[in-house]
Amino acid sequence: MKKCTRVVATALSIAGIPLAQASAQRAATPIASRYRTAANKIISASLADSAAWMRLAELTDTFGHRQSGSAALDSAIDWIVAGMKADGLENVHTEPAMVPHWVRGVESAALVKPRAVKLHMIGLGMSVGTPAGGITAPVIVVHSWQEMTAHASEVPGKIVLFDVPFTNYGETVQYRGGGAVQAAKLGAVAVLIRSVSSGSMQNPHTGWMGYDSAVKKIPAAALSVEDAAMLARMSARGQALVVSLTMNEQMLPDAPSRNVIAELRGSERPDEVVVLGGHIDSWDVGQGAMDDGGGAVAAWEALRTMKRLGLRPRRTVRVVLWTNEETDGRGAEAYRDAHRSELPNHVMAMESDNGVFRPLGYRVTGGRKALAAARDIASLLAPLHATKVSAGGPEADVEKLAELGVPAMSLDVDDTRYFWYHHSEADTMDKLDPREMAQCVALMAVMSYVIADMPVSLPRADAVDSAAAAKKTR
Amino acid sequence: MKKCTRVVATALSIAGIPLAQASAQRAATPIASRYRTAANKIISASLADSAAWMRLAELTDTFGHRQSGSAALDSAIDWIVAGMKADGLENVHTEPAMVPHWVRGVESAALVKPRAVKLHMIGLGMSVGTPAGGITAPVIVVHSWQEMTAHASEVPGKIVLFDVPFTNYGETVQYRGGGAVQAAKLGAVAVLIRSVSSGSMQNPHTGWMGYDSAVKKIPAAALSVEDAAMLARMSARGQALVVSLTMNEQMLPDAPSRNVIAELRGSERPDEVVVLGGHIDSWDVGQGAMDDGGGAVAAWEALRTMKRLGLRPRRTVRVVLWTNEETDGRGAEAYRDAHRSELPNHVMAMESDNGVFRPLGYRVTGGRKALAAARDIASLLAPLHATKVSAGGPEADVEKLAELGVPAMSLDVDDTRYFWYHHSEADTMDKLDPREMAQCVALMAVMSYVIADMPVSLPRADAVDSAAAAKKTR
Repeated sequence: MKKCTRVVATALSIAGIPLAQASAQRAATPIASRYRTAANKIISASLADSAAWMRLAELTDTFGHRQSGSAALDSAIDWIVAGMKADGLENVHTEPAMVPHWVRGVESAALVKPRAVKLHMIGLGMSVGTPAGGITAPVIVVHSWQEMTAHASEVPGKIVLFDVPFTNYGETVQYRGGGAVQAAKLGAVAVLIRSVSSGSMQNPHTGWMGYDSAVKKIPAAALSVEDAAMLARMSARGQALVVSLTMNEQMLPDAPSRNVIAELRGSERPDEVVVLGGHIDSWDVGQGAMDDGGGAVAAWEALRTMKRLGLRPRRTVRVVLWTNEETDGRGAEAYRDAHRSELPNHVMAMESDNGVFRPLGYRVTGGRKALAAARDIASLLAPLHATKVSAGGPEADVEKLAELGVPAMSLDVDDTRYFWYHHSEADTMDKLDPREMAQCVALMAVMSYVIADMPVSLPRADAVDSAAAAKKTR
Repeated sequence: MKKCTRVVATALSIAGIPLAQASAQRAATPIASRYRTAANKIISASLADSAAWMRLAELTDTFGHRQSGSAALDSAIDWIVAGMKADGLENVHTEPAMVPHWVRGVESAALVKPRAVKLHMIGLGMSVGTPAGGITAPVIVVHSWQEMTAHASEVPGKIVLFDVPFTNYGETVQYRGGGAVQAAKLGAVAVLIRSVSSGSMQNPHTGWMGYDSAVKKIPAAALSVEDAAMLARMSARGQALVVSLTMNEQMLPDAPSRNVIAELRGSERPDEVVVLGGHIDSWDVGQGAMDDGGGAVAAWEALRTMKRLGLRPRRTVRVVLWTNEETDGRGAEAYRDAHRSELPNHVMAMESDNGVFRPLGYRVTGGRKALAAARDIASLLAPLHATKVSAGGPEADVEKLAELGVPAMSLDVDDTRYFWYHHSEADTMDKLDPREMAQCVALMAVMSYVIADMPVSLPRADAVDSAAAAKKTR
């Protein structure tokens, strides 16, 4: 993850079902009893080795990060397809999607007054470049939209630095996504932001930013948390700051890419489909291990685990590794459009895109009945202490399906450190723990297996849910 | 800190004084009672504002890092001298030292086979450069001296990568200090190490390395923890690695530098001296805020706090900000040599060089009587929960005085994150907390004030201590 248009997940209480009562019900449900043996088999097999972590390490060490339009992404997709076929998975194929092809160029930022300091920067994804000679301009430091508005008369001709400390992603990322437009409206020549990050060691964080066709496009880059804070301190001391910014980023014509599909066909109702997946593209930094190689490989491993245990459910389980989550979500749109006629038979769609850290449980959309069923099934994860189920927005790729009524789930993980590494050079294999990743594999496999096999389909949202959903504003 | 020749601090029990008994004695001592009011005044004044942190921020934002031989170090020294005079401190002056003048050049490392990846690297301090075209050679990955020895026949012509996970500084830093010599003896053409760091976000860590005049000098650099681990994984998969290393580092002729001195002259015994300080030089990365701008400014602020509270002790309190701790300790040698005749009257010398993080207490050398007295005085720090006193080796600058019998103390702090930032671009102001730094100021001020004022001088090591010290090998 994540684009900044994402709905922020929030924990909601389930109308009419007190937690204690729900918990008491859980212990007695036939579903939990029926699938305990299968779930325990899946958990044991997942935790027996470090296969998932090793596979992800080989993927990311061999191909590195996998930006939309890059040769590395294409090669990684070929490697995954070959591996899925070698695993004996079914109906392994790719499905096409044209994706934006934005490329980073040579880029740098430096404080030139009151003293020369090279700054730790990274251009924001989709940003235009600077003119060839770069942009050298005075800097105005602000800490909020309100502060910029209050100083609007000082903005023309300046570089605006949004030095906004991290609160939560949904709140802070607005400056990354919308900073260039808002500053350009007031006459700024470029925008810098404090990296959207909850912890830093001089690693600046990229990520999606947007333009408005009615407003001049100005270059946008992130500084490290450290450098943004330093400039803010200097400015607060009354020092006049001048920064030089050079970015040779370019938007090339759309490039072909692919979603990857693999299945275990259902034994009784093969046309009913449970989807699980992650996104295979990443930003052009680090290894894209956490965001989202881990989610993609965990989904793949979940399916492989069912296959090798001989657990073939009644319905089809389908792994989808979406392309282009980071820059435009074209993979998710392509999957939705290619499978639109099947969507009424999509029983559930699950994505992992918060890092394969220690799993806590699941976030669920799709109504109170789906939530109750998920809570029931999640009781099977008690051996992993990952039985937490809460209502919460879907990840970006699955959101396209959830919008059309497919119940959606996300892996809920201990993401304490997620925003330390996210979209930066520090998104690397060493940040992931083999055992925690194996636990995530177990969570994806247990939930998708049970939902694909249980006698009654996972219920969809009813009228009560729809009314509740209508009340919430986006 | 720290050069790798440092003796690692170890907690020792005090011969013959069980802790419970020592604690019971503490509550009743006349010293603790006598100085409670003064100590509380110092603590309140130190914690009343963020002056120390603000001063350090201004120092480091204005001058940046302060490498031996750099113009920034010279300017920072001038700024400090002016500030100390403005504070009304006494006998403010500098004392000369000639320092090594090693300079980093353009440097880079890249994996060239099996795929092209730019590596996150930093040359080790004092390293020679590569030939102009760089060095491109196969890499052999080892995890210990033993493993290199076992594969000695494979080393000639190769770059040795010591991929040694961090255990503790004293143990792991040996590969940084001695890796080039040991690998060159076996015919290596260059050395890479996994950064000596307990946590990483792609920030490689520099630090001192040494050569042996009898062994060919080969270039030495650190990789980020992430990149070293990646190369080790690839090598373990049987992939042949080739790395290209370019370093234009140079050793210039020794440069003039200065220690900074400021005093509060003693009211009764001005010739008896309590020293407190930190080192004012840093590596050429980050802001040198934690290592050791924080220690230097905390010592300065401790003296200023006594001054503004009108606390003039019987003996002289002297702040010494040493130059050149990082690359050769020439400032410490110069101080020792210039003040050699005074050293019998040096009652105590204290340095802070582990970061001005949340203070725990003090580490003390100089014998069991000094330790007992320190424990007594430290009871005054109960309001800060910083009463821990343990035996432990001095910091590098004070070590030169401790070797000649001066009782030594170090600030003991919660250094959990010290080795995340140490000697890297991430050693910046935002890592330090204003309140924690103020607490460190209080610790330095209380201990040095009481020792400078108490009726009986802090006892020196006696025969029992000397015999015990002789048993310990360096």
